[in-house]
Amino acid sequence: MSVLSTLRHPIIAAPMAGGPSTPALVAAVSAAGGLGFLAAGMIDTGRLVADVAEVGARTDRPFGVNLFLPDPGGVDEAAIQAYAERLGPQAARRGVSLGEPVGGDDAYPEKMAALLADPVPVVSFVFGLPDRAAVTALRERGTEVWATVTRPDAATAAADLGVDAVVVQGTEAGGHRGGLPDDDDYGLLPLLRLTAARCDRPLVAAGGLVDGPSVAAVLAAGAAAAQLGTAFLRCPEAGSSPMHRAAVASATPTALTRSYTGKRARGVANDFLRQHDAVAPRGYPQVLHLTRPLLAAARRDGDASVANLWAGQAHPLARDLPAAQVVAEVSAGARAALATVVERSSRWG
Amino acid sequence: MSVLSTLRHPIIAAPMAGGPSTPALVAAVSAAGGLGFLAAGMIDTGRLVADVAEVGARTDRPFGVNLFLPDPGGVDEAAIQAYAERLGPQAARRGVSLGEPVGGDDAYPEKMAALLADPVPVVSFVFGLPDRAAVTALRERGTEVWATVTRPDAATAAADLGVDAVVVQGTEAGGHRGGLPDDDDYGLLPLLRLTAARCDRPLVAAGGLVDGPSVAAVLAAGAAAAQLGTAFLRCPEAGSSPMHRAAVASATPTALTRSYTGKRARGVANDFLRQHDAVAPRGYPQVLHLTRPLLAAARRDGDASVANLWAGQAHPLARDLPAAQVVAEVSAGARAALATVVERSSRWG
Repeated sequence: MSVLSTLRHPIIAAPMAGGPSTPALVAAVSAAGGLGFLAAGMIDTGRLVADVAEVGARTDRPFGVNLFLPDPGGVDEAAIQAYAERLGPQAARRGVSLGEPVGGDDAYPEKMAALLADPVPVVSFVFGLPDRAAVTALRERGTEVWATVTRPDAATAAADLGVDAVVVQGTEAGGHRGGLPDDDDYGLLPLLRLTAARCDRPLVAAGGLVDGPSVAAVLAAGAAAAQLGTAFLRCPEAGSSPMHRAAVASATPTALTRSYTGKRARGVANDFLRQHDAVAPRGYPQVLHLTRPLLAAARRDGDASVANLWAGQAHPLARDLPAAQVVAEVSAGARAALATVVERSSRWG
Repeated sequence: MSVLSTLRHPIIAAPMAGGPSTPALVAAVSAAGGLGFLAAGMIDTGRLVADVAEVGARTDRPFGVNLFLPDPGGVDEAAIQAYAERLGPQAARRGVSLGEPVGGDDAYPEKMAALLADPVPVVSFVFGLPDRAAVTALRERGTEVWATVTRPDAATAAADLGVDAVVVQGTEAGGHRGGLPDDDDYGLLPLLRLTAARCDRPLVAAGGLVDGPSVAAVLAAGAAAAQLGTAFLRCPEAGSSPMHRAAVASATPTALTRSYTGKRARGVANDFLRQHDAVAPRGYPQVLHLTRPLLAAARRDGDASVANLWAGQAHPLARDLPAAQVVAEVSAGARAALATVVERSSRWG
């Protein structure tokens, strides 16, 4: 029996690396009948193991862990050096030095080993597709494997790998693009329909979904469930900073940019995003490491004009409610939206 | 009684300027219980008047006319000159000269006068919002006025103008962006939800909608009807060229670009789009007039690597069927998709 089929509500809390997806948030969503996801990116393996244990202690319902796949490399060192020279004075004015723009695999092999040693119900991947050995090893231990795609042909490749479900991420989504390369611009509905036409796996729709009617929409378009991130950023259980919560609650539009990390990600637009977007080079995690001290200092100073403020396009609709209530109200809102339209549809023809 | 409330199917054929939206297509969609739209852009007023008369002769059902609003101006003449120098050799190799990059209002005042003299059921606008006088004059003659928006704040402004409905166009849409400026990137679902939260007019969802489940999706998300363009490009009644039909039927992804006309528009990506996208200046209709002889020559030569091939992101799902059958099958598909999900939703909670 698949994890998706055991959910009481067709709602998944997207993994949000960098703080928001606390064990408390993940457990609250799963306990409420949705599916919570830990974000394993940008933390060390010890922390991941501890977070997994904490979720397990808080709920006996299924949950997932999301892994960042290592970048295949091939960055333009000169472009990253030029970006460092551009950002240097801004860092100096704030009293910090930029970081070393090093590469790295985010301890992927070690995290994978930990998840094989102590299996969780679901592991999802972003930043490309896992290799066949990883899929096989996880599935042999009873872990479902979910891939993330941002273009239709990646969904075909994911199905060929034998994954259990495919997360279909539209351009509306907050945070990093889950696909590789990072420059797809498919809106969620066309991507969902094009993916459904060529991939027989259950589809999880992600990107810009915050309320009941938008969840109803993706289910009507063929998704088995909806994955919401921004909708949970204002929950008391989330680890989001006060500055981040304020940006989510604002009406300021978002934009996609490589300014902060070298990989395209969507955040509430601010000065830093606009000043550097046109020249920010591709190069993850090199640019992430480069900007990290500057962005951390901006967060420490409460400077929302510089810090990254990841959010999906519908962020003004996110609400300050406990996670269980978000799950229940979004689900009820989806059901009500469907009932209204089905009643209307009886009059067509 | 609003035009939307008289439709037997919640399906509108998007106005597609440049040939596809023939009177035969418009009349076929309206006669089938949807709503057809003539495209008044880039034709002269005599032709518009004749097209309106022909639709009226073919069906007694309501239909609409779409008008291009004149650009407020402010183009960068030097950038357009540089683009002309870049394209010159390519035009010469094809044996044509580039056009004069002149401005112009697409005979907007004259077309408006014709529509006031001989009113049609609906007039929709793109490229910004009409002024209050135009809205009032049309409504006094019994014509509904629909505005097109690509960002939430424009929907608020449209509602303040007293329009009868708002067409909400997501980034997934084929052809030109209907808003002003042309660089919004909202996906359809977030835009629909953000617009519904601040605008009490009926919403028409547009962008990347080709099949029944995607139409079901936008209705569940609160739209009163769905506007489909690409879905009709392969119909026998459409004026689409064989080259355009082949591109729509292909799996080649689309992209947004100013390469062809100086205004961002989505088409199936080809060499011309990719070669010039990074440098093509903003400037409509100047760039349209500049490239017109080159693009016309490419069409004449059947060269799909140069001609503009407008299409929405879900174009591979468009089918070669008579327009009435597209309307009936998309509507039936939407109803079936809704029935399936509503059955599932009874088990949540």
